[in-house]
Amino acid sequence: MSLRYLTAKLAQQIDEELMNAAGAFSIDQLMELAGLACAQTLAKVYSREKYPRVLVCCGPGNQGGDGLVAARHLGMFGYRPTIWMPKPGSKDIYKRLKKQCDNMHIQTIAPGTDVQPLRDELAHSDVILDAIFGFSFQPPVRAPFDAALPLLTESGLPIVSVDIPSGWDVEKGNAAGFGLNPDVLLSLTAPKEGSRGFKGRHFLGGRFVPKAMEEKFQLNLPEYPGFDQIVELPPAEGSQKL
Amino acid sequence: MSLRYLTAKLAQQIDEELMNAAGAFSIDQLMELAGLACAQTLAKVYSREKYPRVLVCCGPGNQGGDGLVAARHLGMFGYRPTIWMPKPGSKDIYKRLKKQCDNMHIQTIAPGTDVQPLRDELAHSDVILDAIFGFSFQPPVRAPFDAALPLLTESGLPIVSVDIPSGWDVEKGNAAGFGLNPDVLLSLTAPKEGSRGFKGRHFLGGRFVPKAMEEKFQLNLPEYPGFDQIVELPPAEGSQKL
Repeated sequence: MSLRYLTAKLAQQIDEELMNAAGAFSIDQLMELAGLACAQTLAKVYSREKYPRVLVCCGPGNQGGDGLVAARHLGMFGYRPTIWMPKPGSKDIYKRLKKQCDNMHIQTIAPGTDVQPLRDELAHSDVILDAIFGFSFQPPVRAPFDAALPLLTESGLPIVSVDIPSGWDVEKGNAAGFGLNPDVLLSLTAPKEGSRGFKGRHFLGGRFVPKAMEEKFQLNLPEYPGFDQIVELPPAEGSQKL
Repeated sequence: MSLRYLTAKLAQQIDEELMNAAGAFSIDQLMELAGLACAQTLAKVYSREKYPRVLVCCGPGNQGGDGLVAARHLGMFGYRPTIWMPKPGSKDIYKRLKKQCDNMHIQTIAPGTDVQPLRDELAHSDVILDAIFGFSFQPPVRAPFDAALPLLTESGLPIVSVDIPSGWDVEKGNAAGFGLNPDVLLSLTAPKEGSRGFKGRHFLGGRFVPKAMEEKFQLNLPEYPGFDQIVELPPAEGSQKL
């Protein structure tokens, strides 16, 4: 039984069922575990000794929240993260997560649509955590993210993307061609259809899907090792070693 | 600069500051990370191959919530936890955490003051997670916990205690003599005064205390390894190897 790749609709349904009365998870819990998995994935591939300066790029939605949690944990792990969150969400949870990062003395680039500060920061970063768009992404890419995606690519820095590389269609992948080309991908709960052709190192996170839900959706998840929050998936056919 | 041991009052103050407007953490976040640290500690010392059946004993307060989170993660790690929570708290969060355990098919002993079901379950358990009383414990030990503590001790099973062994005074330790005698202790945020004389393996969890707060309270926390949520403290003087 092979690992199931999710459509956008199915990913949405699983997300909803985790948080409805039956699933009983709060968004605080799931975001905490998702963000921790992001931080662990980055730390697994890029050591804090060689890649201390992490630019955490956060979108306006829930994935931006995962990014804020990841930034905090990366700070705890000894990295020096900087947050770029040009359009901070207005929900209370984003404000609290941001405050927690402030308390860790994590720098944040001032919000706004001018990408020059992002360009400047890229020159002083070692690795990028891409928490811009998640499984609910619908094109077109709006400002300032339309200008930011090429900047991230042109930087030549290694990129760790969360759930689906930003700019990719959740089901069709980077068919349109304007998406990022990350080195590492962390899929959450289960990989998305669009990531089938992904050639880099591919991890799975979301060690919170109850057995009953895994069976209901026939996810056929792999076994996680020890007490990690992530598991590396076998390389895709034709993929290259990082 | 040596690790600071907290009074009950200071532990209370740190807890409050983590969750007030300045600290900005929600109880969902902190309980998730605390419970994960509990599960990791148990898994670090007692392998799921040799000790698959974990009896998770939960008190009526927040530490019981940590226990429920730990039970869920232990289930995720491949253990077979059973929950004993004779006086479930009425707060919504306990109900949600319990539901999450139900969704993992984790068994729960029916609530109530009769300890016979606990006695029966002890005969089929390999290790105990003691999440009964935390740093806000005040004697006397009320029913059914007064009857339960001796049963846990008499079982001869290894015990992992959370924050302070149940029945111990947070500052004076087991001076009164009716507390548990655990093999492993996981202190949360910082160890408590009462644990100074603890002779077993001692871990620290709570990798969420912001640097500013660590400095304000002069906690002098040790460095956590890699991306673990726990760190083992050096053995106390005169302590014996487990």
